[in-house]
Order: sequence, then C-alpha cells, then structure tokens
Amino acid sequence: MSHPLFGPELAQMLAGGDAAGLREFCESLHPATVAEALDAGFSPDQVWEVISHAAIRTQASVFEYLPPALQVEMAEKARPQMGQLLSKMSHDDRADLMRRLPGRVVERVMRFVDEADRKDIATLFRYAPGTVGALMTTDYAWLPGTITAAEAIDQLRAQAPDRETIYYVYVLADAARRADGSLAPRRLLGVISLRDLILAPRHALVRELMETDLVTLRYSEDAEAVAKLFARYDFIAAPVVDEGLGLLGIVTHDDVLDVVQREATEDLQRQGAVGPIAGDYLDAGFWAVWKSRAFWLGLLFVLQMVTINAMARYEGELEKLVFLSVFLPLCISVGGNAGSQASTLVTRALALEQITVRDWLRVFRRELLMAAALAAGLGALSVLRSWVLTPDSILAKVPDEQFWHLAWAVTLAVMGICMAGALVGAMLPLLIKWVGGDPALMSSPFIATLSDVLGIIIYFNIARLFFF
Amino acid sequence: MSHPLFGPELAQMLAGGDAAGLREFCESLHPATVAEALDAGFSPDQVWEVISHAAIRTQASVFEYLPPALQVEMAEKARPQMGQLLSKMSHDDRADLMRRLPGRVVERVMRFVDEADRKDIATLFRYAPGTVGALMTTDYAWLPGTITAAEAIDQLRAQAPDRETIYYVYVLADAARRADGSLAPRRLLGVISLRDLILAPRHALVRELMETDLVTLRYSEDAEAVAKLFARYDFIAAPVVDEGLGLLGIVTHDDVLDVVQREATEDLQRQGAVGPIAGDYLDAGFWAVWKSRAFWLGLLFVLQMVTINAMARYEGELEKLVFLSVFLPLCISVGGNAGSQASTLVTRALALEQITVRDWLRVFRRELLMAAALAAGLGALSVLRSWVLTPDSILAKVPDEQFWHLAWAVTLAVMGICMAGALVGAMLPLLIKWVGGDPALMSSPFIATLSDVLGIIIYFNIARLFFF
Repeated sequence: MSHPLFGPELAQMLAGGDAAGLREFCESLHPATVAEALDAGFSPDQVWEVISHAAIRTQASVFEYLPPALQVEMAEKARPQMGQLLSKMSHDDRADLMRRLPGRVVERVMRFVDEADRKDIATLFRYAPGTVGALMTTDYAWLPGTITAAEAIDQLRAQAPDRETIYYVYVLADAARRADGSLAPRRLLGVISLRDLILAPRHALVRELMETDLVTLRYSEDAEAVAKLFARYDFIAAPVVDEGLGLLGIVTHDDVLDVVQREATEDLQRQGAVGPIAGDYLDAGFWAVWKSRAFWLGLLFVLQMVTINAMARYEGELEKLVFLSVFLPLCISVGGNAGSQASTLVTRALALEQITVRDWLRVFRRELLMAAALAAGLGALSVLRSWVLTPDSILAKVPDEQFWHLAWAVTLAVMGICMAGALVGAMLPLLIKWVGGDPALMSSPFIATLSDVLGIIIYFNIARLFFF
Repeated sequence: MSHPLFGPELAQMLAGGDAAGLREFCESLHPATVAEALDAGFSPDQVWEVISHAAIRTQASVFEYLPPALQVEMAEKARPQMGQLLSKMSHDDRADLMRRLPGRVVERVMRFVDEADRKDIATLFRYAPGTVGALMTTDYAWLPGTITAAEAIDQLRAQAPDRETIYYVYVLADAARRADGSLAPRRLLGVISLRDLILAPRHALVRELMETDLVTLRYSEDAEAVAKLFARYDFIAAPVVDEGLGLLGIVTHDDVLDVVQREATEDLQRQGAVGPIAGDYLDAGFWAVWKSRAFWLGLLFVLQMVTINAMARYEGELEKLVFLSVFLPLCISVGGNAGSQASTLVTRALALEQITVRDWLRVFRRELLMAAALAAGLGALSVLRSWVLTPDSILAKVPDEQFWHLAWAVTLAVMGICMAGALVGAMLPLLIKWVGGDPALMSSPFIATLSDVLGIIIYFNIARLFFF
C-alpha cells in the first residue's frame, strides 16, 4: 500500500522537467497515493510544480489529500492557481483550509477566488468548530420534485462533476424570502438515492419517488451527533438543516470516520489524564501540551495531598510496627487498578449509550458481585505470596506467632481495598454524569485519589484488628 | 431522533390485529427506526408478527437493524419465513447471524434456504473472525469490461435490488478454472463508479472508462487494515481479493464505522487494564469479564510485589524517621500519573502511525524537556504545600531546623519521580513495539509497577541525602 519508489522517480522527472511524465503520474494514480508520494520530503514549491501539470480538478483532489501543514505552506505562496484550485475543491475541505490559514493569507488567497465561491467559503466559515455545521459541505446534488426520473438523471449528469456525492439527491422546495426580504435556504422536502432513481420508471415524478421520512442533523449540534447517526443508519450522507428545515448542507461518510477517530483519541487522552490535545504528537505545540499535562498532573497532586493527612492519622501504628509501611504501596495499588478497570468499563458503556444513569442499581449489583469475585482471586494470590515472598528482614522482625497475623492483615486489606476500588470506580462515573459532568474527563483523577485514601484507611484499620 | 411514542401505538395495532396499520408502520419509516421501536420490549413472536405484514425485502432490512441477541432469538423460532428473509438480507449480515447461532439452529434454519444462498453463507462463514474476510459481503455489482456505458447502466438496473451497493461497479475477467478443474474467483480488472458511468458517453466501453490503479484488501488481513484504508481513501466500498487478484467480495463504508468504534473501545479497555471485553457492559458474561479483569488485576498485583522488596531495603530509614512514610503515597502517585500521561500520548501516536519506533530519539528529547517542565511546575506546588499543608503531628516531630530538609526532600523527590515516570511512560511503549509486542496492551501494567518501584527508590535516596 505504500509506494516508497515514487520519490526518486518524481525527483528525477522534476529535475529533467519531464512535463508528460509528471502529468501521467498525477492523472493515473489515486490522488491519495499522489499526495502521499509528494508528502515525502518535497518542498511546497516542488509540490506546486508537480501538480501544475495535471488538470485543475486533479490538482484539487491531490491537494485535499495533502497533510494540513503542507496545505497551509502551499496556500501561503498564494499563486493565482490557488483560486482555480479552491473553486474545484470540496466545499468542506476548502473551508477547513481557510480556518487554518493566518488572516493575512486568507485575504491574499481570496483575491483569486470568484464571488460565488467567496460567499460559500464565508458561509461555511461561520460555523463553530466541533459543530455539525463545521463538518458539512455545500456541494450537494439537488432537484425540484416536479420533474420525472429521466429528467432527474439528465440534470444529475450536469451537476455530477461539481458535487461531493450524487448518490443521494435532495429534493427542495422553491426559494422563499424571509420577512426581511433576504433569501431563505430552500426547504428540504425529501431525499432520493441514485439507485432508486435508476430503478424507477422513466416518467415517474421525483416527488412521488422520494423518501419523506427524513433523518436530519441540525447545524448547531455537536459533531458527535454525526457519529451516532451514521452508526445507526448506514448512510453515505446526511442532510444538515436549520430551524425551518431549510437545507444548509450535507455531511458525508468520509467526515464521520475522522470524527470517530478524533473522539476515540480524545477519550483515550481523557482517560490517561492528559486532557484532549489537538494535532499530531510531534507537531503539537510544546507549551499547549505542557499546559494540559501540567494542569492534570497538578490537580491530581493537590487532590492526592489528602493522603498526607490520612497517613498522619496512623503515625502511631507506623511507629510501633514499621514493617506495616513495607506492604502499603502494594495494597493501595490494588485499589487504583480495580478502580480504573471499573471506571473504564462504565465510562465507555455510558459513552456508547449501552447504559444510562438510571441503570445505577444494576451496575452497582453487578460490580458488587464482580468486586467480591475479584477480591477472592486476589486474596488467594495474597495468601500464596505470604509463603513464598516475605523478605527475610521482615521475618526477622515478626515473631513466629505473628506471621499469620501479618499474612491475614495484608490479605484482608487487599480484598477490602479491591472491593472499595471497584465500587468507587463503577459508581463515580455515574455520579459525575448524574450531576451533569463529563465522566470521561473527570473520573480518573477522583478515582485515583479516592482509592488511595480509602486504601490507606482500610489498610491501617484492618492492621489494627490484628496487632493492637 | 428517538421515537418513544411508537411502543403503545404498536401494541394497540398488534392487539387489534390491524394488518394495514402494521404494514404502513413497517413500510413508511426507516428500517432502523422500525427496529428501534420493536426492540423496546416486544417478544420475538410479536416482532415476527409485526414485520410479517411488510414486504419480504422490508422484513430483511428491519431484521438487519435489530440487536444481535434479538436476531438470534427470532432465528431460533426458525419459521419458514426465515429462509426467504435470509435470501434478501445483506450477505455479510446474514453470515454474521449464522456465526452467532448455535449449530443445531443453523441446521434447522438452513433447511429453508435455497442452494445458492446456502453456498454463499458457507463461503463467508469460513473466514476467521477479526479478518477482512469476515467483514466482507458478496452482493457486489459487477460487469464485464466489453460492454458500453449505456449497456452497463441497463445491467445495473437489473442488479440493483439485490446488491449492497451499486455505486462502485467491479469489472471482472471471464471465469477461469483452477488446475483441479474447480472455478476460480473471477479476476478483478478495474473499478468504475456509477457517477463516472453516468457521465460517460453512451457508447464508450467500460474497459476504457474503468480505473485500473486498484486499491484492494486481502481477505486474510486484520480488520484494522479496513479502517486504515478507508481513513486514507474516501471510499464507499473496497474490493477484497485473493492471491491471484480474484474478487472475493467487498467491504462497505458502514462496516468500517463498526470496526473503528470496536477498536476504540478495545484500546480504552486495554489502557484501563481490562483487556478487550466483547459485547455490551451489562450483557457481557460475568465469568468472561471476571477472567479478563482478574487476569490483569492479578498480573499487576504480582508485578507490584516488587515494591515489598524495594520498601524492605529502606526499613532502616523508616524506623529512624517514621514521618518519611507519611509522604510516600503522594510521591509515588506522581510517577504513576506522569507515566500514564506520557504512555497514553505515545501509544495513541503509534496506533495512528503519527510516529514509529524509529522516532524514539525525537520522542525522548521531547519528553525529556516536557518532563523537566512538568517537574518544575510540580516542584513549585510542592514547596507551596510545605508551608500550608504539613500536619501538626509531623511538625511536632520535625525539629525546626529540619523543616526545610523535609520540604526540600519531598519536593526534589516529587520532581525526580515525575521525570522518571514521564520518561518511562514515553519510552516503554516504543520498547514494547520494538520487540514486537502490543504497546496498548502491555504499557499500563509495566509502567504502573516500574513507576512505583522507581518512586520508592528515588524517594528514599533523596531523603537519605537530607537526613543521613
């Protein structure tokens, strides 16, 4: 799938000014493949040089597949070509590009763009990042409902070259004006797939063929709504509408994958207490990453200071039986591990809507049983450990008759801490969700702290039972 | 988007035997919507009753959207209807269903299926779960290359009702026989989109129009390859071939979303040390989940036993200065947190191929600077803490002239442990990947253990500098 051999070949064609070769290269391969070959060390000027031999539509396709950073560098050259290229790009991709360019570059580039495209870019530019509006494209195929299937196919033939997809065609009402005299977006009446158009009798009217049970997105919804809708219905595209069902644009299947990947990354980062970090690992700004990591690390540090007070309460015990502290790190780690397991499962189940806050009692019952079963397993391991792995220095200090006191104290503490950790880990995400917080974001720090403090308290109280 | 009102309405139509109403319900709404309404508390028999009023093709569409558990319950009734329904289902969905049914039910159901479909199901059944083969469907549209665009559209019109998608059409060679006389899959010559067919001159030959720079998947590849390919090329479908470029089936865009979601869940679970757990949180088998959680919890417990030996080495210090153990949980938690941040970022960057093992030096340099910057921040917080939050019981035991010894010991330990944690967290995933392991799976346990042990060692060695 990767084409490591194109690099030298391309460099040679560039050096030799082999126009026919470069055109052939751009036109015969998939634009994604061309883009990948160009991303392997060529300068923005060289990339311009290579693609300028292809048709403007091919240039636009290849450009769309280049990494954002390279797109920005190329746009900064602001050749007149850029205007033509923008007019052939997908409307959502070019709006994304404009969002990434510095203001002065946008101004320079816009000079080469004709008015209709300028207006379209300005419209898409308005939508807030992270919303459905920012994902959508305006180059959808549309028809009036009053024509026949045969006429519809003819009209699509004319629209096809400029549309992101023609496989779903949107049937729109006549244009209407708002109270203030401006044109409102045309109202969405129905949708018909190209497959159904091709299957339909030639003279059937589109408005009789179209699907009117419409599934739509609102431009202001969170981009996450797109992922949910596409996961549920197996759409290639979905229409985005305003309050009056006016069609604003469409979101296509390829944007959904990006949303799902981005959200998975964010969830992983939240769970790892990093806070969502935009961009590639090596490209992300050092201080932006520092801020996010330092914030969470600092918050966890401050919360975890409670362990100092918890420990201080048991100083008497520590003084009398120093060997107790030897087993402490092991015991409290159990709580953190059991807690992070439970919170991972519950948080993900909430995100995928497999459970809701109302299921708390079912979750509690299940985790109670699970925690008990896990504690039983760890308890067995812990008893085993007492035999085979108690350091001689400890054995020397524990009188023979107290050896089993120590073994049982540690074992019972491990079991209690495991149960406490698992239950806190399972219940806290539900509690956070219930009070309106984001469980993915807020679970880990609180569970880490709570399970450490609970661990210390349980450990010393059980030790007291055996030794004091 | 959800339709809570359909439930009572449906129950009433069922009770009243309102055949026309039930047909209208099934036929006018999106099959996903119908399936969702039926999943709200109706028995398998009732679901059969509702959908049996619709056309067999609609029944198949609704059935495909029902949750797997309900599909299995319905199939176990094995009505003769099931055979018809299977013949109209997507080929990948029905193969999935067969995979989930108990053997005896498969046998019973197969009696109602005609021979061509039986063969097709058996073929798809063969591919190992988790491979590209298990995702693919055999109901693709195909044509010979020797016909014209107009003839092609006519042929597609005939194929359309039975194909998962007709938007990509595969151009195949004539059938050929293997050495043993059996028919080999037809060789894939090219692909053409319906859009291009519609745009083409009526008399142009398909083989002159088709794209021959083919991007294909191998049936034996990991399903992950599908996600990568679709993320790179914005395909609606991709062809799956055998060693001789014989076309076996296609994978469609809707399957890709499922793969990406499933992998995100698995990655989150691995990071939370749960090990991938199949199925919904509340539906997953108790003992299967126990096994996975107990395994990781047990492994972590055993690994973390090393902390006992680490602690035992510093018993002398603990005995002399009991208050040292009071600050220990706080200090070692810093290492775990800094480590999990770094490993989250590096592991995800590896998974998304933003970095490779060869970038280890760049990662090391970046994390070294980052760790130093994070340690500086935590150090400041730690000095601050010494003033405002040192328990009185500790103050009573630390002679005035030693207060700053303690403050600096804790602060330097926090800083050292933070740096050690971050560097271990960043480097370990790369090391695991380098030796051929799965960083997502194996990072967390080792980082947790390593950072605890390093934390103990760093803490006591720095304390020694100040107090002994």
